[in-house]
Amino acid sequence: MASPIAAARQASPPRVGRRERRSTEIRERLFRAALGLFAERGFLETTVEDITEAADVGKGTFFNYFPTKEHVLATLGAERLAVIERAHARSKTGPVLPALKDLATDLAGQSAESAALLRAVYAAHASCEPVRAELRKRLIAGRRLLAEIFARAQKSGEVRRDESPEELARLTQILLLGVVLAWALNPDSSLRKTAEQVWDLFFANLRADEKRKTARGRRSGKP
Amino acid sequence: MASPIAAARQASPPRVGRRERRSTEIRERLFRAALGLFAERGFLETTVEDITEAADVGKGTFFNYFPTKEHVLATLGAERLAVIERAHARSKTGPVLPALKDLATDLAGQSAESAALLRAVYAAHASCEPVRAELRKRLIAGRRLLAEIFARAQKSGEVRRDESPEELARLTQILLLGVVLAWALNPDSSLRKTAEQVWDLFFANLRADEKRKTARGRRSGKP
Repeated sequence: MASPIAAARQASPPRVGRRERRSTEIRERLFRAALGLFAERGFLETTVEDITEAADVGKGTFFNYFPTKEHVLATLGAERLAVIERAHARSKTGPVLPALKDLATDLAGQSAESAALLRAVYAAHASCEPVRAELRKRLIAGRRLLAEIFARAQKSGEVRRDESPEELARLTQILLLGVVLAWALNPDSSLRKTAEQVWDLFFANLRADEKRKTARGRRSGKP
Repeated sequence: MASPIAAARQASPPRVGRRERRSTEIRERLFRAALGLFAERGFLETTVEDITEAADVGKGTFFNYFPTKEHVLATLGAERLAVIERAHARSKTGPVLPALKDLATDLAGQSAESAALLRAVYAAHASCEPVRAELRKRLIAGRRLLAEIFARAQKSGEVRRDESPEELARLTQILLLGVVLAWALNPDSSLRKTAEQVWDLFFANLRADEKRKTARGRRSGKP
């Protein structure tokens, strides 16, 4: 994907005039400058002035685009939500699991991704309750979409029915987010490749499958 | 488990004299005081003096037990490693998957666990390279033990053989760590219960199973 903001546009394409293009460009510049600094120095250590300086715009300009520094992180979250929205749209017309696999690898492999940035973003969430409150809202929105996707897939017989769509959505979200966070602490591999392996190895078990159900009966490990 | 230090003792039980008991007690008191403060104020915001005051010992005493504040986190990591060592020992004499399931839920459900503490611990790792270097050492040690467990289980035919033991160990470690980290950002459920659900739903797919292999062939989602 080209960029988060391009991604957001792609999700609901508006007609874009010249002024709006210019505005999008500045917003994008501020966004990238902020992420670069968060990764380099940490979220808490970066000031709005650092960001506007790096983006080469006046300090006041920042606030035309983001009410606070924390809102830059919200943009990052909106990007993730846009990925889920696309999977949601796609799941209406085709099989769900391939759409979810692409979602899993997309979430992990976005352009803005770097281990240092992810760590800075996590640190901001870990140490700042308002930032977490924003995250929770997006997690809830994302979970709702995922639950709708799973409900559809259970109805069509593609996905197992022994857990509710809501629970499948919750656990899927925890795993996908968790892979990104754990990877960021010890990035000794490709994140996208890792997310793909996790999907292939573990998420295959979401499929509706009589054979799998039989196997599940002996999941306690007894032969 | 009673406590991390008790756990470490359990892993390699020494004969304990009175002086050593006293020493263990103070170490434990410092450890608990430190974790409480990390959870309450954050790792970076907590000083050694805060810790010794909360533990009601002289400031210098701290350094008899921990060279730096960061080493308190290493103790927390040692606790995790002890859990893996127990699973490793157990896997020599019985089926591997039940031992790993207990490991997965133990890692998540330890006594010192609280979302605020986990966030403080993650923030410390995110913002401090020496702390991450210590974590990496422990992750490598843990991964080696897990790989040995998986190698044994592949040999006995309990676990699938289409991924190397090292890769299974790496992915398992990322998932188990990831669940804890993701949960800490949005603790809207029980962590132990969540880890158990993740195990039952996703890790069942590690089993060696001809049926599962057939199913894996069509994991792309095509019916």
